[in-house]
Amino acid sequence: MSDSILTGDRPTGALHLGHYVGSLQQRVALQKKFPQTILIADMQALTDNGTDLKKVSQNIIEVLADYLAVGIDPTKTTICQQSALPALAELTMFYANLVSVARLERNPTVKNEIASKQFGDSIPAGFLTYPISQAADITAFRATLVPVGDDQLPMLEQTNEIVRKVNRLADKHILNECKPLLSNVSRLPSVDGKNKMSKSLGNTIMLSSDEAEIRQSVKSMYTDPNHLRVSDPGQVEGNVVFTYLDAFHPDSHYVTQLKSEYRAGGLGDTKIKNILEECLQELIRPIRERRQVLMSDTSYLLGVLKAGTQKAQHVTSGVAQEIKAMYGLVL
Amino acid sequence: MSDSILTGDRPTGALHLGHYVGSLQQRVALQKKFPQTILIADMQALTDNGTDLKKVSQNIIEVLADYLAVGIDPTKTTICQQSALPALAELTMFYANLVSVARLERNPTVKNEIASKQFGDSIPAGFLTYPISQAADITAFRATLVPVGDDQLPMLEQTNEIVRKVNRLADKHILNECKPLLSNVSRLPSVDGKNKMSKSLGNTIMLSSDEAEIRQSVKSMYTDPNHLRVSDPGQVEGNVVFTYLDAFHPDSHYVTQLKSEYRAGGLGDTKIKNILEECLQELIRPIRERRQVLMSDTSYLLGVLKAGTQKAQHVTSGVAQEIKAMYGLVL
Repeated sequence: MSDSILTGDRPTGALHLGHYVGSLQQRVALQKKFPQTILIADMQALTDNGTDLKKVSQNIIEVLADYLAVGIDPTKTTICQQSALPALAELTMFYANLVSVARLERNPTVKNEIASKQFGDSIPAGFLTYPISQAADITAFRATLVPVGDDQLPMLEQTNEIVRKVNRLADKHILNECKPLLSNVSRLPSVDGKNKMSKSLGNTIMLSSDEAEIRQSVKSMYTDPNHLRVSDPGQVEGNVVFTYLDAFHPDSHYVTQLKSEYRAGGLGDTKIKNILEECLQELIRPIRERRQVLMSDTSYLLGVLKAGTQKAQHVTSGVAQEIKAMYGLVL
Repeated sequence: MSDSILTGDRPTGALHLGHYVGSLQQRVALQKKFPQTILIADMQALTDNGTDLKKVSQNIIEVLADYLAVGIDPTKTTICQQSALPALAELTMFYANLVSVARLERNPTVKNEIASKQFGDSIPAGFLTYPISQAADITAFRATLVPVGDDQLPMLEQTNEIVRKVNRLADKHILNECKPLLSNVSRLPSVDGKNKMSKSLGNTIMLSSDEAEIRQSVKSMYTDPNHLRVSDPGQVEGNVVFTYLDAFHPDSHYVTQLKSEYRAGGLGDTKIKNILEECLQELIRPIRERRQVLMSDTSYLLGVLKAGTQKAQHVTSGVAQEIKAMYGLVL
């Protein structure tokens, strides 16, 4: 059996350089090697945005434009909309009977996210149970490889527990276990070097940023606060400009050379920022331009999403049907 | 707006006299006055039978035969299969984001059921969240009247909370609130007078029971343990034979007369049991006979279920579509 990939995003905002480095580049490469599906996880996005009627829907088309603008090719990658695939909800319901509440509460990823989101006493039921919904997604697409950060490994473990339970119950192979495809890229820091990247905090560079925004972001970037004069020795570790140069500059030898100069003293922040800015302007310009063209033709974008969703409909409803058949419910 | 009714059963066993008195008779009467839907809740039945591959599916057809045998008329009442209606799963997912885990844990009905089922540390997530699924059912059929026992009132309260939340979010009337239709019939005791009626305990009379089984059940019925000789005064309260005579004998004056005779002494258990048996044989014979004919033609039964489910598909997916539209997800 050849591998197939499921990946996706919660459409809660347009994508930024962190997504570019963390997942988008990898997807562009992977689509040449594997069947790949990208799920725009609008249902999952609602698990902690259930009272916001606009946030999720507004961003579906933004995220889709980002995908195509960076080179994800809809003839190679199936891009689809979670809420338009009822089989995913059906599978979630079936699997929910095979997972205990206590097991969900022990899931480290969910535990951390619940802590960070400060729900207080009001954890939405849909949020606690979203690992089940994720298992539904992964199995519904018969995915065997799931690109994740290592903080997401407990989610795949929970998925595989469900897979094994179902296969044991059915006494045959119905669902595929999945393996993580761990990224070797570490998380890109925000421009301010402090917080998680977030559009609303203004500490990130979006794939849609214009020249002035990019310039402004690089200018405000966190460097070495003790590097007061050009001649002072500077610190490279924790210096966001160098982290970005590592991530985005095409010539790594040149970056190594810049680092020694900076450490020795004599290389100013303005200079390294200019180098970074030029490199980011070059990277983002064609993405932004393709993105603008795409966003001016939403009927094309919607067509891509609909075609992908229709294809996804076929495979996901097939899996739901198998689970129903296992329970003898196909009358 | 005229009222419409949703009711249903978890198909975990064929139906018995308790169902007949508690709900089936009422449904036969209600179908003449209201649009009525009966949901065969196979998904809900799986919330505590998720590892039993046969139990639920085997009983769908049994329950369906019971319905038609007692006079539920598929031209008046829509009978449908829950698992064949994906909109119900979709609505459950949407509503789950509007209900907190703590709120579910406070639901008295769920609390009691969890205690009685002895899940221990392994409460299935699907079981904890089934009030949400029930809200999905009720709202998906735009039901305004739900026949329930008073132990189920907290479920309707939880449904109406979701309804109000959705309508407030949408800032318009999307979902209907529902009202309970409380039965004035008290729960029929089991033949042994002790436990809950259960086919497996052999303490009930099924709608499919044959003459010998009915005779045997009535013979074994709990009466007054202190009524040793015919001439002794007997107790009517807690005497299962009299409870059944109250529930099933067509002539209540005659039953009142029997009670005074029994109380005074001089009326034997054998005599009252014979009277009850005759009355139950007459009640069940035509039901059993119709049931046998129906069970010999499963393709007819499946046809009824499919037609009802198709009709239900239309209304339920319409409601799911409205919720998706509220979130802007219909692209």
